Amino acid sequence: MTSRKKEINRVVLAYSGGLDTSIILKWLQTTYGAEVITFTADLGQGEELGPARAKAELLGVKPENIFIEDLREEFVRDYVFPMFRANAQYEGLYLLGTSIARPLIAKKQIEIARKTGADAVCHGATGKGNDQVRFELGYYALEPDIAVIAPWREWDLTSRTALIEFAEKNQIPIQKDKRGEAPFSTDANLLHVSSEGKVLEDPAQEVPDYVYSRTNDPEKAPDTPQYVTIDFERGDAVAIDDEKLSPAALLTRLNELGRLHGIGRLDLVENRFVGMKSRGMYETPGGAILLVAHRGIESLTLDRGAAHLKDELMPRYAELIYNGFWFAPEREMLQAAIDKSQEFVTGRVRLKLYKGSATLVGRESPYSLYDQELVTFEEGAVAYDHRDAEGFIKLNALRLRTLAKRAARGGKK
Amino acid sequence: MTSRKKEINRVVLAYSGGLDTSIILKWLQTTYGAEVITFTADLGQGEELGPARAKAELLGVKPENIFIEDLREEFVRDYVFPMFRANAQYEGLYLLGTSIARPLIAKKQIEIARKTGADAVCHGATGKGNDQVRFELGYYALEPDIAVIAPWREWDLTSRTALIEFAEKNQIPIQKDKRGEAPFSTDANLLHVSSEGKVLEDPAQEVPDYVYSRTNDPEKAPDTPQYVTIDFERGDAVAIDDEKLSPAALLTRLNELGRLHGIGRLDLVENRFVGMKSRGMYETPGGAILLVAHRGIESLTLDRGAAHLKDELMPRYAELIYNGFWFAPEREMLQAAIDKSQEFVTGRVRLKLYKGSATLVGRESPYSLYDQELVTFEEGAVAYDHRDAEGFIKLNALRLRTLAKRAARGGKK
Amino acid sequence: MTSRKKEINRVVLAYSGGLDTSIILKWLQTTYGAEVITFTADLGQGEELGPARAKAELLGVKPENIFIEDLREEFVRDYVFPMFRANAQYEGLYLLGTSIARPLIAKKQIEIARKTGADAVCHGATGKGNDQVRFELGYYALEPDIAVIAPWREWDLTSRTALIEFAEKNQIPIQKDKRGEAPFSTDANLLHVSSEGKVLEDPAQEVPDYVYSRTNDPEKAPDTPQYVTIDFERGDAVAIDDEKLSPAALLTRLNELGRLHGIGRLDLVENRFVGMKSRGMYETPGGAILLVAHRGIESLTLDRGAAHLKDELMPRYAELIYNGFWFAPEREMLQAAIDKSQEFVTGRVRLKLYKGSATLVGRESPYSLYDQELVTFEEGAVAYDHRDAEGFIKLNALRLRTLAKRAARGGKK
Amino acid sequence: MTSRKKEINRVVLAYSGGLDTSIILKWLQTTYGAEVITFTADLGQGEELGPARAKAELLGVKPENIFIEDLREEFVRDYVFPMFRANAQYEGLYLLGTSIARPLIAKKQIEIARKTGADAVCHGATGKGNDQVRFELGYYALEPDIAVIAPWREWDLTSRTALIEFAEKNQIPIQKDKRGEAPFSTDANLLHVSSEGKVLEDPAQEVPDYVYSRTNDPEKAPDTPQYVTIDFERGDAVAIDDEKLSPAALLTRLNELGRLHGIGRLDLVENRFVGMKSRGMYETPGGAILLVAHRGIESLTLDRGAAHLKDELMPRYAELIYNGFWFAPEREMLQAAIDKSQEFVTGRVRLKLYKGSATLVGRESPYSLYDQELVTFEEGAVAYDHRDAEGFIKLNALRLRTLAKRAARGGKK
Repeated sequence: MTSRKKEINRVVLAYSGGLDTSIILKWLQTTYGAEVITFTADLGQGEELGPARAKAELLGVKPENIFIEDLREEFVRDYVFPMFRANAQYEGLYLLGTSIARPLIAKKQIEIARKTGADAVCHGATGKGNDQVRFELGYYALEPDIAVIAPWREWDLTSRTALIEFAEKNQIPIQKDKRGEAPFSTDANLLHVSSEGKVLEDPAQEVPDYVYSRTNDPEKAPDTPQYVTIDFERGDAVAIDDEKLSPAALLTRLNELGRLHGIGRLDLVENRFVGMKSRGMYETPGGAILLVAHRGIESLTLDRGAAHLKDELMPRYAELIYNGFWFAPEREMLQAAIDKSQEFVTGRVRLKLYKGSATLVGRESPYSLYDQELVTFEEGAVAYDHRDAEGFIKLNALRLRTLAKRAARGGKK
Repeated sequence: MTSRKKEINRVVLAYSGGLDTSIILKWLQTTYGAEVITFTADLGQGEELGPARAKAELLGVKPENIFIEDLREEFVRDYVFPMFRANAQYEGLYLLGTSIARPLIAKKQIEIARKTGADAVCHGATGKGNDQVRFELGYYALEPDIAVIAPWREWDLTSRTALIEFAEKNQIPIQKDKRGEAPFSTDANLLHVSSEGKVLEDPAQEVPDYVYSRTNDPEKAPDTPQYVTIDFERGDAVAIDDEKLSPAALLTRLNELGRLHGIGRLDLVENRFVGMKSRGMYETPGGAILLVAHRGIESLTLDRGAAHLKDELMPRYAELIYNGFWFAPEREMLQAAIDKSQEFVTGRVRLKLYKGSATLVGRESPYSLYDQELVTFEEGAVAYDHRDAEGFIKLNALRLRTLAKRAARGGKK
Repeated sequence: MTSRKKEINRVVLAYSGGLDTSIILKWLQTTYGAEVITFTADLGQGEELGPARAKAELLGVKPENIFIEDLREEFVRDYVFPMFRANAQYEGLYLLGTSIARPLIAKKQIEIARKTGADAVCHGATGKGNDQVRFELGYYALEPDIAVIAPWREWDLTSRTALIEFAEKNQIPIQKDKRGEAPFSTDANLLHVSSEGKVLEDPAQEVPDYVYSRTNDPEKAPDTPQYVTIDFERGDAVAIDDEKLSPAALLTRLNELGRLHGIGRLDLVENRFVGMKSRGMYETPGGAILLVAHRGIESLTLDRGAAHLKDELMPRYAELIYNGFWFAPEREMLQAAIDKSQEFVTGRVRLKLYKGSATLVGRESPYSLYDQELVTFEEGAVAYDHRDAEGFIKLNALRLRTLAKRAARGGKK
Repeated sequence: MTSRKKEINRVVLAYSGGLDTSIILKWLQTTYGAEVITFTADLGQGEELGPARAKAELLGVKPENIFIEDLREEFVRDYVFPMFRANAQYEGLYLLGTSIARPLIAKKQIEIARKTGADAVCHGATGKGNDQVRFELGYYALEPDIAVIAPWREWDLTSRTALIEFAEKNQIPIQKDKRGEAPFSTDANLLHVSSEGKVLEDPAQEVPDYVYSRTNDPEKAPDTPQYVTIDFERGDAVAIDDEKLSPAALLTRLNELGRLHGIGRLDLVENRFVGMKSRGMYETPGGAILLVAHRGIESLTLDRGAAHLKDELMPRYAELIYNGFWFAPEREMLQAAIDKSQEFVTGRVRLKLYKGSATLVGRESPYSLYDQELVTFEEGAVAYDHRDAEGFIKLNALRLRTLAKRAARGGKK
């Protein structure tokens, strides 16, 4: 697609320091003749960022063009937590660990582009996945005229061999284990690790144990359950076992607990936004616990009308995030509705962690809507008259009775 | 409410044979002077029905007025399975085990009322719960002018002492352990056991182990996982480990598997239709497995558009069943949509059962929509051109870019 | 229902000054022995409030217990306008003129009850309608332990004759034309007039012309169309034909325009919350114009994602207001989402009023999202590449092609 | 995009006989060297099809390759009527006249492609509109591997001058009035006429009168209203003024009535699927009447639960049709739900047509759910006890009271 190639002067690359984005870095320099600005974020993926700086320098990036930032708190506070207020699960199960990180990276790239006067941004996502969409919708929503470079859709390095050759030709250091095709590809941040491809591509075959990296095999998890309490304030988790923690520290702690007890594994065939089904493996140890906990505190403090509306809106909300529409007005509208509901989602839940499961075993709140006197079998001094139920049923039944009479008159039932 | 008391000649009572419904039986005879017809159903609750007949006779019900029916196959085939096609979970978690049984009982009572010329039906549900609503909406939807008697809303036997006195005065046999207040109340059928009340009423306290009756404690479940395959045809499970089974037999088998591995326990604070929160404990061993399995086969065979629409409709569908609107037109409309989607939901899933969890580990289908060639990283002969993604993103981004330009012009972002 | 009668000391009555609420006033004094506090609001119903004060005094209400308030601005600003931001129409057509007034009246009654130490509130709505529900849900949502008196559900004045007799016995003045049964009953406020009952009860018969009071017969409306401009700011109308107007003044002006041109009549069979169908006639001259205008300015300034989400949420939102759940959390959540969308709904629309119709003929906005360059047939310098459409279509088609291939393999299509 | 040009042997062209599709025909022959098969459909656009045959022959299409079909009955019966069962309106207003015709044309082209062994299909829709999407999603859904040619996205005839030159060079007859740029472009079928472009592109300017072709100006419509009855069976219109009519004949008759009275004009700024806003003018005289009529008969015969569910699903359903997803599973699921609801939508409505408006004035049905006795003010022998309302309200209020108590305890309200 030579004809569509843009004239680029300066480009901000989402740079991990790994082989693939190093190749992209070099390719941008050689193909586009562009000055490359690297952006490397700590989102809790569990890798040190120091080497990324060294490697960028080695590849000729000017020191002032190397941006490295620890985004863990911002990530959890402004992206993960708002999403968990919605109990968001894509296709009923996926906790959106990759999807939720992309908008933040996109936003930071755009900020750096503005700061450095760059006219383009670049990401390392492939041409068949969702991430290219998420990155680019983010870019365009924030900077509508930015040029976007997606090397995997543009270049002719379409085989592993071609990539390695390019790397060798350009003096890019190659770790031994990166020469061959990886048995699967991985994305990681503080919320989750995901894997897909190669050994995972047959959905009839169980995921091999070596694919998992962030959780113990439940069979090898402790034989004794562990109890934990989580405190919430206005919909967000704020403390574990009575210890106040910042958002990122709290999620880190939950990840440790989840890892130990083998919680949060998911083997999923999902529907990509680009139109195909794929099979992925996800590990979201802390997130899986957090979901159970949040649902638990909501069950006590959220009104039925609010809770049911949230449940009905959730699939749409999750789909929007999955598809990359974090910065779209309809996501913001749904967020406004969801946030409105969380005012009293404050209190404490208790969970039991054991062999792959996080089970809610107790919840309490100063804002509880549960009224023991009301629910107790005896009719008491409370605001409930058994006879009210008759009227309630009668009027709810009225339209059904009218329907039944029509059926009796000649329609069928 | 004496003034509203109806003139009743014959009444069909949903009769379990237990103490409470025996008291109701006698109360109907003495208070209303009505001829009582008993209906006792085997819904898989796990009790023998023989004693119910004997007891009804003892209490003066004429043999021709005693109806006992094994409804297990009809229950699973026409109620449980259609509901599982929707992956229905009330408030995200509850598998609706009690809710789904009520319409069938109501339907049978109405059929017997017609057969026997009865002018009333009667149930033993209390005045604060959902079941009264479910029974009565069912009655009215099928027979709009039937009289409904709900003793718990009408009588003055409002304490355990009063009930026992009434029983003694009327020669109703009382088992020793029924004299005192039960520590919790229970409902059971082939899909689940539920418990609520008394010892469960503090939602901060963990459910005591003795409340569970249908599942092993996960901690005492086998230390070795068990693998099982489930085959589906058009959305319904038809075989386990290659053995074809009738609906009820299949659910029974799943219950055994779930019991062994401690699967399907749920401790829930839920919102009742009558307006209060209550706390219940549910055990749905087979159902919990079935849900995972059905979601698994759908993930492979259901189109994204259909799957997402189902996810969005589900909360409403579940709410309708929970609230007792099984026979309402809107439930039937949703069912038509759901059933339409299940045409190719055929194939096999493989699950791993272990210590409280049922985990999907594989799925395959002759109608699979998963296309390994399409998803594979290399661009192949298949119908996917990486460049298509650019156009796809560009047009999806167009409105976001227009918004961003407006924001730049003076609106904020 | 003597047994349920509450002990009441002081009661705040929603008092119109008309015969029916005067009877209620007296009945409260005589039956409950309660001190009556009257509340009369000007909601734009088009009646003077002076006589209400005089009549209340005549009926023995102490001067300090007579509350009269002009609520027109608050009504339009805080109830009508927020509702119109949603384009709310119940069952596709009804502009909710009665429904939206009830919460405000309920709120004021509760405020007065608090101020005066009253322990009860009372309304004059009948036992078959929606208004009783709307009033009482409002009362309970704001003051959960308030006693509620609904005379039409309680008393034995169940015929016109009985009412008139009661009035005569209690020296309540009776206008001549109120002695007989009214040919229809009416509710009015600044947003609308509604009529129902008697002459309207056969839904096959056209509404007689004399029922209409707020609009000209379109056939008698001017033969020449009138053009009008309406300006919006953040979703609310603020000016007509360049003249800035307060909310109530603006709606008043729209009502005059609508009256002249015969706009806003509606003959509807609707579904009441209490379970029956009823037939009503509505005149909403200004509201009908406002809806067209608001949709018009939104069409230019609202993003597609926001607009479609609003359209999907609207029926639920309208249903909540119709059913009386203005003060429920789910209505507030939806309002938060809707309000979030209105930030740039600013600009001017032009309408043509003629013989019963308000037609949008033009719209413009500094925040317009319409881009003439983008939409023009020629491919220009703008951000649209025709080839993008191919990729967009291809990826949108991908799942449909996969389905078609499955169908070809053996499934049917 | 030469590199993506497909090898084509035989191509089925949607051919109108007009200048533009004649140019396409010739372009396909000359550029692709393909044998062209023409398909010309009578969808009620109001043009004779004879000339299309003559012109195709003139342009060298073999007689056996010319397909001309009258699709009017199929169009109305299988596309328009099912859509009207849903009361579908895109963005609240647009009756989807163009959108609903595309799937049928696509289907016929695919059928002819199969019959003639063609390997490609071709349409004349431009690269910025929705129709390209609708055609192509239809093609791909029915024949996943068909090649699709979209000349407007491919060729370099990007100006009127280039087109006319190409026509002249290729001996394509050119009507005098087609030499210049048309002042607007038009689509027509039995359901509607639409116009867009050029003179319509400024959304602030009123649509000039000469753009309208299918309706009288309301100001010039008869000064006397006309009454008309429409009979429905199971959701579809079957007779007008007592005369049974086939679907197409019925819609034709409604169009005549609507034309006379100036009904069904719409001036709309809408959101295209491809991401931009456009401004169009629609005339749907018969459809506008049909919508009012169908809503009217539903109001009498449809249960509230069904009606409200339909209202909530409608925007999604309309969006699917607008976006071209007629053949998608989710559209079929929604159709199944909608059709399920129409079983008793049978009866007669009466409308008044006058100066641009179709107003419902009466409705009756053997399956009416309206119960005059139930709704009448007096409490009668019917199944309604005023006291039931109290219980109904009390239980609906229960959760609101609980919320209010929480607010009083320390939360705010």
